[in-house]
Amino acid sequence: MPDRTEIDALIELMARLPGLGPRSARRAVLHLIRKRALLLTPLADAMQAVAVSARECLNCGNVGTSDICPICADEKRANGQLCVVEDVADLWAMERSGVYKGRYHVLGGTLSALDSVGPEDLRIPQLVTRLDTESITEVILALNATVDGQTTAHYIADQLETRVELTSLAQGVPIGGELDYLDDGTITAALNARKRV
Amino acid sequence: MPDRTEIDALIELMARLPGLGPRSARRAVLHLIRKRALLLTPLADAMQAVAVSARECLNCGNVGTSDICPICADEKRANGQLCVVEDVADLWAMERSGVYKGRYHVLGGTLSALDSVGPEDLRIPQLVTRLDTESITEVILALNATVDGQTTAHYIADQLETRVELTSLAQGVPIGGELDYLDDGTITAALNARKRV
Repeated sequence: MPDRTEIDALIELMARLPGLGPRSARRAVLHLIRKRALLLTPLADAMQAVAVSARECLNCGNVGTSDICPICADEKRANGQLCVVEDVADLWAMERSGVYKGRYHVLGGTLSALDSVGPEDLRIPQLVTRLDTESITEVILALNATVDGQTTAHYIADQLETRVELTSLAQGVPIGGELDYLDDGTITAALNARKRV
Repeated sequence: MPDRTEIDALIELMARLPGLGPRSARRAVLHLIRKRALLLTPLADAMQAVAVSARECLNCGNVGTSDICPICADEKRANGQLCVVEDVADLWAMERSGVYKGRYHVLGGTLSALDSVGPEDLRIPQLVTRLDTESITEVILALNATVDGQTTAHYIADQLETRVELTSLAQGVPIGGELDYLDDGTITAALNARKRV
């Protein structure tokens, strides 16, 4: 169908989004065409706006629309705590919980020998610099509980050991979790970290 | 975060796509921001292009970029066969198989008492008109094997009965299908329509 090129091109691009394949991309594009005024045009405009305005915070690596993100710009959040996360998505997840009042540092990935990601590929040098400039007293390692995440946490802990208080997120049974559905590693961790009632 | 409105707005719009929820929309938007030049800007442009150019074929209801779609414009496909489908996605699926050489008629849904969709809400009057103007000899009912799809097929069959040859897609075991994973209805249909080897 030589006549359908714009639509084909859109389907092809949509299929490259994480979580969408060719079939769901076709479905999404048909949905967009049906809701042209309500969804397709606003979405095109919103993408254009984000393409122009999105930038990485020069300080922490968060994604926002200014060179310094609102968290780094907020003096109230300079409480001496620095939460180290792998990814912006992790930062957003922490923010949704609304319980953390300090600042963040986004590594932009994990150390990985297989993918040859070394410390200089992550924002680890910037982390070390921030310890001095922002008078950090506690670094909270909120890395994912995966092999790569924990390797990275160990590496950072080695680098910072003597300079600040180092903590990491507690491991255990998730709220609402059923023991029967948990993996052995989680049960072992929860048992080892058991608390007196 | 008052500063992240453009990004928030984009996440909200993306979450309205079929197959995406808030979490996958966030993931997709972060991915888009990371691949700004390679994906975000081209996607915004492609959406804009489709928003401008996409239209429904006035004859069959297919989605394309011209008032008459390439299939309706192609004289070679005026072979007297007319394949009736519920949806543009079904038409595209038929075209991918590449085996059908006639024209299509997209109903734009199914009859549904619950959602109060009557014959006049679908493109059934247009279908009746096309029988005369395009000298159709066979109408192939390629509606989904759902209750609504089959109800609609029966209704159309009643309307057209004496005027053309009416056929419908065969029902049975899908190619590569394992009996153990098929529902009872499919096995019953396949058994009833069994063929001598």
